[in-house]
Amino acid sequence: MQEFTKFPTKTGRRSLSRSISQSSTDSYSSAASYTDSSDDEVSPREKQQTNSKGSSNFCVKNIKQAEFGRREIEIAEQDMSALISLRKRAQGEKPLAGAKIVGCTHITAQTAVLIETLCALGAQCRWSACNIYSTQNEVAAALAEAGVAVFAWKGESEDDFWWCIDRCVNMDGWQANMILDDGGDLTHWVYKKYPNVFKKIRGIVEESVTGVHRLYQLSKAGKLCVPAMNVNDSVTKQKFDNLYCCRESILDGLKRTTDVMFGGKQVVVCGYGEVGKGCCAALKALGAIVYITEIDPICALQACMDGFRVVKLNEVIRQVDVVITCTGNKNVVTREHLDRMKNSCIVCNMGHSNTEIDVTSLRTPELTWERVRSQVDHVIWPDGKRVVLLAEGRLLNLSCSTVPTFVLSITATTQALALIELYNAPEGRYKQDVYLLPKKMGETSPHDPHTLKEIFFKITFIFFLFLSS
Amino acid sequence: MQEFTKFPTKTGRRSLSRSISQSSTDSYSSAASYTDSSDDEVSPREKQQTNSKGSSNFCVKNIKQAEFGRREIEIAEQDMSALISLRKRAQGEKPLAGAKIVGCTHITAQTAVLIETLCALGAQCRWSACNIYSTQNEVAAALAEAGVAVFAWKGESEDDFWWCIDRCVNMDGWQANMILDDGGDLTHWVYKKYPNVFKKIRGIVEESVTGVHRLYQLSKAGKLCVPAMNVNDSVTKQKFDNLYCCRESILDGLKRTTDVMFGGKQVVVCGYGEVGKGCCAALKALGAIVYITEIDPICALQACMDGFRVVKLNEVIRQVDVVITCTGNKNVVTREHLDRMKNSCIVCNMGHSNTEIDVTSLRTPELTWERVRSQVDHVIWPDGKRVVLLAEGRLLNLSCSTVPTFVLSITATTQALALIELYNAPEGRYKQDVYLLPKKMGETSPHDPHTLKEIFFKITFIFFLFLSS
Amino acid sequence: MQEFTKFPTKTGRRSLSRSISQSSTDSYSSAASYTDSSDDEVSPREKQQTNSKGSSNFCVKNIKQAEFGRREIEIAEQDMSALISLRKRAQGEKPLAGAKIVGCTHITAQTAVLIETLCALGAQCRWSACNIYSTQNEVAAALAEAGVAVFAWKGESEDDFWWCIDRCVNMDGWQANMILDDGGDLTHWVYKKYPNVFKKIRGIVEESVTGVHRLYQLSKAGKLCVPAMNVNDSVTKQKFDNLYCCRESILDGLKRTTDVMFGGKQVVVCGYGEVGKGCCAALKALGAIVYITEIDPICALQACMDGFRVVKLNEVIRQVDVVITCTGNKNVVTREHLDRMKNSCIVCNMGHSNTEIDVTSLRTPELTWERVRSQVDHVIWPDGKRVVLLAEGRLLNLSCSTVPTFVLSITATTQALALIELYNAPEGRYKQDVYLLPKKMGETSPHDPHTLKEIFFKITFIFFLFLSS
Amino acid sequence: MQEFTKFPTKTGRRSLSRSISQSSTDSYSSAASYTDSSDDEVSPREKQQTNSKGSSNFCVKNIKQAEFGRREIEIAEQDMSALISLRKRAQGEKPLAGAKIVGCTHITAQTAVLIETLCALGAQCRWSACNIYSTQNEVAAALAEAGVAVFAWKGESEDDFWWCIDRCVNMDGWQANMILDDGGDLTHWVYKKYPNVFKKIRGIVEESVTGVHRLYQLSKAGKLCVPAMNVNDSVTKQKFDNLYCCRESILDGLKRTTDVMFGGKQVVVCGYGEVGKGCCAALKALGAIVYITEIDPICALQACMDGFRVVKLNEVIRQVDVVITCTGNKNVVTREHLDRMKNSCIVCNMGHSNTEIDVTSLRTPELTWERVRSQVDHVIWPDGKRVVLLAEGRLLNLSCSTVPTFVLSITATTQALALIELYNAPEGRYKQDVYLLPKKMGETSPHDPHTLKEIFFKITFIFFLFLSS
Repeated sequence: MQEFTKFPTKTGRRSLSRSISQSSTDSYSSAASYTDSSDDEVSPREKQQTNSKGSSNFCVKNIKQAEFGRREIEIAEQDMSALISLRKRAQGEKPLAGAKIVGCTHITAQTAVLIETLCALGAQCRWSACNIYSTQNEVAAALAEAGVAVFAWKGESEDDFWWCIDRCVNMDGWQANMILDDGGDLTHWVYKKYPNVFKKIRGIVEESVTGVHRLYQLSKAGKLCVPAMNVNDSVTKQKFDNLYCCRESILDGLKRTTDVMFGGKQVVVCGYGEVGKGCCAALKALGAIVYITEIDPICALQACMDGFRVVKLNEVIRQVDVVITCTGNKNVVTREHLDRMKNSCIVCNMGHSNTEIDVTSLRTPELTWERVRSQVDHVIWPDGKRVVLLAEGRLLNLSCSTVPTFVLSITATTQALALIELYNAPEGRYKQDVYLLPKKMGETSPHDPHTLKEIFFKITFIFFLFLSS
Repeated sequence: MQEFTKFPTKTGRRSLSRSISQSSTDSYSSAASYTDSSDDEVSPREKQQTNSKGSSNFCVKNIKQAEFGRREIEIAEQDMSALISLRKRAQGEKPLAGAKIVGCTHITAQTAVLIETLCALGAQCRWSACNIYSTQNEVAAALAEAGVAVFAWKGESEDDFWWCIDRCVNMDGWQANMILDDGGDLTHWVYKKYPNVFKKIRGIVEESVTGVHRLYQLSKAGKLCVPAMNVNDSVTKQKFDNLYCCRESILDGLKRTTDVMFGGKQVVVCGYGEVGKGCCAALKALGAIVYITEIDPICALQACMDGFRVVKLNEVIRQVDVVITCTGNKNVVTREHLDRMKNSCIVCNMGHSNTEIDVTSLRTPELTWERVRSQVDHVIWPDGKRVVLLAEGRLLNLSCSTVPTFVLSITATTQALALIELYNAPEGRYKQDVYLLPKKMGETSPHDPHTLKEIFFKITFIFFLFLSS
Repeated sequence: MQEFTKFPTKTGRRSLSRSISQSSTDSYSSAASYTDSSDDEVSPREKQQTNSKGSSNFCVKNIKQAEFGRREIEIAEQDMSALISLRKRAQGEKPLAGAKIVGCTHITAQTAVLIETLCALGAQCRWSACNIYSTQNEVAAALAEAGVAVFAWKGESEDDFWWCIDRCVNMDGWQANMILDDGGDLTHWVYKKYPNVFKKIRGIVEESVTGVHRLYQLSKAGKLCVPAMNVNDSVTKQKFDNLYCCRESILDGLKRTTDVMFGGKQVVVCGYGEVGKGCCAALKALGAIVYITEIDPICALQACMDGFRVVKLNEVIRQVDVVITCTGNKNVVTREHLDRMKNSCIVCNMGHSNTEIDVTSLRTPELTWERVRSQVDHVIWPDGKRVVLLAEGRLLNLSCSTVPTFVLSITATTQALALIELYNAPEGRYKQDVYLLPKKMGETSPHDPHTLKEIFFKITFIFFLFLSS
Repeated sequence: MQEFTKFPTKTGRRSLSRSISQSSTDSYSSAASYTDSSDDEVSPREKQQTNSKGSSNFCVKNIKQAEFGRREIEIAEQDMSALISLRKRAQGEKPLAGAKIVGCTHITAQTAVLIETLCALGAQCRWSACNIYSTQNEVAAALAEAGVAVFAWKGESEDDFWWCIDRCVNMDGWQANMILDDGGDLTHWVYKKYPNVFKKIRGIVEESVTGVHRLYQLSKAGKLCVPAMNVNDSVTKQKFDNLYCCRESILDGLKRTTDVMFGGKQVVVCGYGEVGKGCCAALKALGAIVYITEIDPICALQACMDGFRVVKLNEVIRQVDVVITCTGNKNVVTREHLDRMKNSCIVCNMGHSNTEIDVTSLRTPELTWERVRSQVDHVIWPDGKRVVLLAEGRLLNLSCSTVPTFVLSITATTQALALIELYNAPEGRYKQDVYLLPKKMGETSPHDPHTLKEIFFKITFIFFLFLSS
């Protein structure tokens, strides 16, 4: 499993969703970002802003950017048909009528589609950002303009961060009865400051590794006082985040950084788990000659049967044009390997941690580092040999490619359905526990409550429907 | 999962191994089978036969066929390098010295390689056939000539069957201390007739679905009095029997029966489990246009992401050239579907049961059946339309293609290693229980005893070694 | 280009079509062949036979086999939809009404479908075999029973061969006006014995390399006295005979002879022309690790861009499991290579000639040859190493696999359309020359007569229609 | 064949090379472009600039940008190993010693590597730009700094354009003896203004469609007074520009503009020539379901045999997610098709002209155009349906993706070798004619002069060497 969250503090947390907003904001082609530079430096907390309907029930960078943000949301909607379909189907029914949802996620075009879907299904929403950098200001403005109580901007201070969360939870005459969280900070805040709120809460939906981990700890400690749903470990999310997503992002990440031609290149992929399988399939299909290193015998056997040569890294390190790590282990590519690579070899990491390539070992006086492009360094040996290091060994797919909206729509749809289920479940169906969507491919455990299976089937049925029609 | 055993009676039992011997015997090209017709009709039990060393400690059809059988064994050895390697590695050590193994499996060239490996490792073996039809007489003769106490021939009566088993178990001055079974009949016989033998038995190794099922029942009932190893459900066996094997046998089975060209053909594959995935990958690669029907949403999603169009059978039934079932369900292809197929459509079954295609519905007066080749029927409609039905809807891969020796060598190596482990395990390592090799891909449960993991690693390591060097 | 005809004498000639009938006759599963053994040894020329309508205007082995032959023809019709479609479309029009076609081709189920199509379109046909071994007796009987004047049987003497041709040409009250030839023997005979016949002949359609070569020689010498169409070099025929056909037959040939598993095997393919491309694509898709040797730099570059490692044979000869030649050159695999192969390495030839593997070098006293199956020899080195040699180095696809009916139907349809065109062409459209169907992929030369393009489009349109509907 | 040059005027000409510089300059990640905005608006012709060695023999935008340009050149060198290898091999020999080359090409990092290679081989070079927009100013500066007499900047006026060319040709005490041209403007200028120069010229090397066309016209008119080499139509260039390049750029272009996920998407590709084949192979490999439209029957048949469903556009237009044109025809996608597309369908053109999609038909009052990103328009129907139009129907690969340096290095190496050959050819080897490198795959015409074949083999041999080692 590839985990996307490494540092457990809120500012350092890097998750799949965050990276999207990052790259989306960075993107040279996003019309929305053109207005950023004209923004003044006044803190949004000190600004008086009103949307076109006269409401001030929000706090964003600049409400005037709403139009740009709306466009980004419309672009996102184009590839989130499952969610749009859910919106249409359940709109008459209003299954979330009466729901008061307090949410804390990245504020991006894709989550905006989720939030507006929840509203269309009858919910009232108050929303803050789960990361101080990841907010797309234009999208936040568009949400505010549309009447959502959103409190978020890019570049919040830590104080701002908690202030925004507090503004969502703590409002006179409005009390949340559902929580949608990404990272567990919102849940943490409610536990700490407003424990009484849990009396009304019907459930928590959580999607991050960290947040889920916290919920299990609460549950173990007997302190979880409402049902919670672990959206993170659903089989669809796992397959998409790893196999299907990496199959595309390895190509995208390499192309955007190096413009390298894949055909005829010799590539070694370290690790043949789901991420490795995705990378290898894509590269092979585009004409690369791919070698695998793998220590797990079953994965090695799969690599063999899929037609890849399984080697030791040392055997091929002198001849390959590209080295890709996706093992989940540390120092898979050592300084010794780097010393032996040929001129212009590209080195990058698609795996779990930022330490698969021993980048630290390259910080020595005899080597010259040259930043040739954003995310691209040439490390130059005394004899003139250059190794092309991408993203300084951090995750290539998060640093140098975008996550397709379609992938995000899967999580978003799952979250929406989980909220519907928890909100409408009859008394007693769910205990004060963490519920897991079926994890194993093709297996639905007889121990899963029937209704969860139903949710699951609904979700996948919708995708299936839209993929195949 | 594709189960190969359907009828729990010994004569009706159809397993992967059995089919091999079947097709091997049927094969037009096997030199060994040329001599079959010259055999007399006297029962082997009534014949007096002696091998070249003067021993009569066996009962086979015709000891003179030994030379032909030896050739078949030598052919098999060419693609069983993992077992041969095990033989060489452990030969000095003799890890089975003192082992007295009574075995009951199909008697084919591949099992002969297993038996001779066990002997090379120090074991004494007595062997009978687990199926009355599946014995390759020439191979049995070769084993007998080489000194193995083998009691088996093709076309045994039920009485012969049990007589052979009895001759293996019941011998003065020789008492088995290990059992290698395929189907559970040998185990059953020992339980029923010679329960005392279990006092010496160190363990049972069982590879069939049926036999494993019986062992679990015994265990549940508290009647299992020795440790047993379930070889059937090992992850390598499952992957090979289904995904990798079917990827090749779908092509082989279709070619040998119909000589059909795959390129440009429209094919619908019902079911996208492991078997379906194998079939689809192979057909797509050879230029067929493949559609999938699938009711499991996760498998359907996988099909989509693998680039297949997921449809309802009705949508495409009029246009496809080939229909392949691999669902594990009943009546997936109905008479109505068959009525709507176009002329010369080929219909076959790769799945679990023999009832995926409703063949019974074709046994009506208005339809004419014409057997055009072995395993190939033309079913002719009143308007002249012909549907090409393969193997009367039974498993195509078992009926019309061979199982590669390499695949069989995986099971055989696993069996050998399981025997070594059980025989050498210190007192108390294994209880009177059924032990399972790690099942999940890439997952080794913390509950597996460490030594089993070691076995497992040994096995896959060997394959890995030989595949990649 | 892979040429199928090597020896220019009629008995030695090996063509694609011939191989089909061969393997078809050899096939263990062909119902038709069961009756062969009951045939007496009297020459057909001495037999008095009459079909059920009282006609004796034919000479075949045994008219009683007609029913078996009819079944084979019906099987063939299932995969010749283009021809059947042509039959239906042109049946009303009778574009061959008045045509008197004398033909000399292999007599197989597939050519029978062609002949019966010509009859359905209005032609009268007299037919002989172009090879003394290739006739399927049952099919010849079925044609005779249906009223076609066919003169052919399996195992003709050379005298029989010419007698049969003569009986077709030389008949009172019937004079041919079209020739359909495969190999040029019929054309040769008419030139030599009945030159006057050419006064009535409207054209010759020829499909073999040899026959076409002879026509060009005649044309050069100014002796060609009627228009002729070279069907052999049409782009569809070339692509199918090489790329598409070999993609399937490499798998089929290896499986039927050795039952080898492809997954994980290391294979070296010598030559990356059309045949090599087909072999490599298929093997790669089934999980083999494929290396290429290639001396033509463009083909080598293509191999690289398709993701294959281009090597020298010496680099990989010790490690590969299978060696396949398809270069068109001599002694590509030398004794030295054979000496260095590992135990159980499979060696076979898919290329142009029978001398790509230096088989002669293996006929030395220190090596033991063991015929283990039909078309499979183990060559055994003094140290026990075995090399598995297929078809003694002759063409694997011709010796050990069948040619799909679909492929044959392409040539047959082309022949039919060429006959229609030549028969109906207005005076002067064709000169006394050899006409070529457009050869280059995607290129139709402006110098091709318009009508030939039309033919060509008609042909491919029909395939297109049936492939894609 | 995909032609890259459409408008025969110098300003409108769009070629492969130009697009590279475009996208390279546009790229958000190129360090070099950061300095652009600080440039003043004074014309380079009016500036006094001197490089660090004191030379003023050049005219570029800003000599101070040399360092940035040097970095871009070094990046380019990483993937131009064939050229670097040529540089190393021929450096001792100096095969261009005495050569005075006047060149007119795009001034990009890749051509800079070519120019510096020519210098390293002994040549003196004077260079101008073949397009008024395509010059990378930083690269031009780096060349000037390195001592090359370069006259080029981005945004030349037409007057500037000819002035730069003139400065290259017309210099006291220096007379060119070789011409390297891209587009024919330089050749044209010399013909018109300095016809006497041709007395010394040993040959012209030309790579563009337009330039080659002009040379053939001159040759036909008897006015070509030196030998010329047509580099454009070499088989390697053609294969790379179309099949291999488009296989990668279709993915790259779609990703960079829309971030669309390929897996599970339904795509229709119009046209199955080399460009279509490349697109289809890539999309299929990444899990898209691909349909083909094709009117050429041979290409249609190839599509069928490659496993694609061949359809009429109307059949699938309602269901597809992406429409890609690569036919070379006009109005393949009509307004009617666009009207029937589903919401969020992506439409783009990879083909020959800018008119494959009838974009003009979308310029009607009832449709709203919204520019959502650079190169991405949403065209909105009255009912809210959006079609995502890329690059306004112009070539996607030129507008929205980069051309891999590797591809450009093939042309550059060919140009270098052609110059070496022409410069060193003995008197009389080449006439006043246009010489063509062998065009057909795997065919070397016996009519090609032997030395050209040698060149050709040298070129491909080098690639082969570097690709496979």
